[in-house]
Amino acid sequence: MDVFEAIKTRRSIRKYKPDPVGDDVLKEVLEAARWAPSWANTQCWEFIVVRDPQTKKKLSETLGPGNPARGAIEEAPVLIVACARTGVSGFYKGSPVTDKGDFFMFDVALALHNLSLAAHALGLGTVHVGFFNAKRVEEILGVPEGVRVVELMPLGYPLEVPKPPSRKPLEEMVHFDGYGKKGWGKST
Amino acid sequence: MDVFEAIKTRRSIRKYKPDPVGDDVLKEVLEAARWAPSWANTQCWEFIVVRDPQTKKKLSETLGPGNPARGAIEEAPVLIVACARTGVSGFYKGSPVTDKGDFFMFDVALALHNLSLAAHALGLGTVHVGFFNAKRVEEILGVPEGVRVVELMPLGYPLEVPKPPSRKPLEEMVHFDGYGKKGWGKST
Repeated sequence: MDVFEAIKTRRSIRKYKPDPVGDDVLKEVLEAARWAPSWANTQCWEFIVVRDPQTKKKLSETLGPGNPARGAIEEAPVLIVACARTGVSGFYKGSPVTDKGDFFMFDVALALHNLSLAAHALGLGTVHVGFFNAKRVEEILGVPEGVRVVELMPLGYPLEVPKPPSRKPLEEMVHFDGYGKKGWGKST
Repeated sequence: MDVFEAIKTRRSIRKYKPDPVGDDVLKEVLEAARWAPSWANTQCWEFIVVRDPQTKKKLSETLGPGNPARGAIEEAPVLIVACARTGVSGFYKGSPVTDKGDFFMFDVALALHNLSLAAHALGLGTVHVGFFNAKRVEEILGVPEGVRVVELMPLGYPLEVPKPPSRKPLEEMVHFDGYGKKGWGKST
């Protein structure tokens, strides 16, 4: 699939078919994640692949009862739990060097986005789930000190593909040579 | 360009040709960024497109003198300054709802990654620059309260394409049904 098509047609999938996701497909999407760029090539991401239905059920209960992603976690045959080793991204010689502190959120997002674009190109769906009790997920999966759970990402074949939510026009998000300065047409 | 090819062949470009980047190309890559997913579709990202050489020079000086990206910022015809409106991503009814606080780093990363993949597909190069004095950049560009500068991303035609830095093997970053548990082959 063309990269522009993948970017524009990828949707957040919250209804999944029970069809299994084989190891071959799983390897392809994790391989895409692996090729993301990262702070000084530190590759702070780790992924826990959850297929066990009881574990998925427990993990779904770390979301609020009204969260529609709860069903998605139970339904999708695979749940990717994205983790980050802390204290490396955004760091130099053991100390954070920017006003953002640990950069792990940034780098894990890059890897997960590769994963979701690759999944979409293979006919699978994903959704970013960020609103859940991460401490509880860390307990359930035995995640050690120094590693944090960032997101839950269901992975499976879509049962329903929603319409794209509207996006703001480019004019509202793009400035030129200074904040609040508008205007295209200075391309030379 | 195929999405897997784009993901695997995109490199971090630090040497650029002086060839200009036209508005048509700029719109295409910003359009790709615009289609990134975001927390509750809040789209917290904003982009300042800097073409003015004096402004680029000033911005390059917000990096440490030994940072190789300093030259890239001066050389590339366009610098994309990625910003985030704070207090929306990761928030619900005005309060942050996860242990990560503001999620802006995550969402801006998604948008920038779309931008860099789209640029690569069009024959352009980019590099993530996260290590610079963000406060100083905010002053130079007049970025208001409530908006933070996250990254500087040079954009232009590559003069040199480096070899890919090595990646850890999948085995080191993937666990199954619990942290530290290994093993493929449970696909059904």
